[in-house]
Amino acid sequence: MYKLVLIRHGESTWNLENRFTGWTDVPLTATGVRQAQEAGRLLKEAGYDFDVAYTSVLKRAVWTLWHALDALDRTWLPVQHDWRLNERHYGALQGLNKADMAKQYGDEQVLIWRRSYDTPPPALEATDARSERSDIRYAKLAPEQIPLTECLKDTVARVLPFWNERIAPAIVSGQRVVIAAHGNSIRALVKYLDNVADDAIVGVNIPNGIPLVYELDAQLKPLKSYYLGDAEAAAKAAAAVAAQAAGKTA
Amino acid sequence: MYKLVLIRHGESTWNLENRFTGWTDVPLTATGVRQAQEAGRLLKEAGYDFDVAYTSVLKRAVWTLWHALDALDRTWLPVQHDWRLNERHYGALQGLNKADMAKQYGDEQVLIWRRSYDTPPPALEATDARSERSDIRYAKLAPEQIPLTECLKDTVARVLPFWNERIAPAIVSGQRVVIAAHGNSIRALVKYLDNVADDAIVGVNIPNGIPLVYELDAQLKPLKSYYLGDAEAAAKAAAAVAAQAAGKTA
Repeated sequence: MYKLVLIRHGESTWNLENRFTGWTDVPLTATGVRQAQEAGRLLKEAGYDFDVAYTSVLKRAVWTLWHALDALDRTWLPVQHDWRLNERHYGALQGLNKADMAKQYGDEQVLIWRRSYDTPPPALEATDARSERSDIRYAKLAPEQIPLTECLKDTVARVLPFWNERIAPAIVSGQRVVIAAHGNSIRALVKYLDNVADDAIVGVNIPNGIPLVYELDAQLKPLKSYYLGDAEAAAKAAAAVAAQAAGKTA
Repeated sequence: MYKLVLIRHGESTWNLENRFTGWTDVPLTATGVRQAQEAGRLLKEAGYDFDVAYTSVLKRAVWTLWHALDALDRTWLPVQHDWRLNERHYGALQGLNKADMAKQYGDEQVLIWRRSYDTPPPALEATDARSERSDIRYAKLAPEQIPLTECLKDTVARVLPFWNERIAPAIVSGQRVVIAAHGNSIRALVKYLDNVADDAIVGVNIPNGIPLVYELDAQLKPLKSYYLGDAEAAAKAAAAVAAQAAGKTA
């Protein structure tokens, strides 16, 4: 049996400002730092240890990992960065306020953009200053690999190859794996691991900075999964994520 | 022509307490964090960029690198950790106060332990609680590879193979390299690169958190080397390092 730990990054400045973030590279807030340290502390307390860590190329996930590794006394652990663990690309919504968008387009439209499995938000223009097409960290990708928007289905389509090529083989080889990533790249993994239906994944919310543990069998099928620490706190945090788009939270 | 950047970690808690640190894994102070951020800012301002970073398995170097990478907006850069970039092992002196030792054994003896090229300090017992023989980060090494004390010659003897096997090939392949390491692992590199005599390396002091740039020819021979930023500040910081063992600084 294997254990896999997933951690969504701690609160970012744009989580706090209730803005669509996507691939925009915003930092953690002081709360986000504390959440990351607490995630590491919970893991240490529960006796977890790791051989390798995976994260995205976005600093809110990277710093979450770094703070968690420090709390685990594992700052020397090998870390693999990959763009395929990035947050879902939010297209032309990146940088805009979630509640403003809800007022302008209605809660229902925003909920579709946020949670529809296969309807992406409006795309960025490739020439938009917010586009990542000229970002050096993606320089080795073909331009068409760098999204201008994504629905969750698109995110799944790039996360799963990374899972299959890199993470799953590491787990099966006996490496203890921790992944620090994002709400939607983690939902992509949860959808795959738990075989969640396309229309049901909308109801799955991943709280910031709370370690999500999967116990997996030899074929990497989940035996069970659970959040570390206070279960009620995890449920509350997930509910808060779900509430972010409501216009009234502005 | 290649450029290589070396950064000694920022001030650690035991630098501040004037204690021999060696392989003991102590954190940065708030000053050390600022020094690391400033190192990254200086590099960014001067237009430096990197493809890969090397550091030790000790958190004061790792955090220095992380803060510098963040200031450079390169938190996603691949980082290679290796014990061979660790600080010189300080043997039975690890944890003891430099000025106390100077009072007890005399300035001259402490200077020999600190700066002799081939006289190591008294060795730790392998069973000493301070020994790293049971530290999981060295679990893959043979016990005899894990030092119980080191003179600088010993440090050179483990740093150079890492340079030859890993760092030099990376530079020659065109990768832009930054190394965040320690006073003596950096002195080992400086001794090798600048072909400093055994009895002259005692006079070379590496200041905390100031990027040291080497411009290297195609054979990796130095064309020139210099500290980034305020040259006077770098000289002062190096002089402060040299003064640490004097009993009067206690």
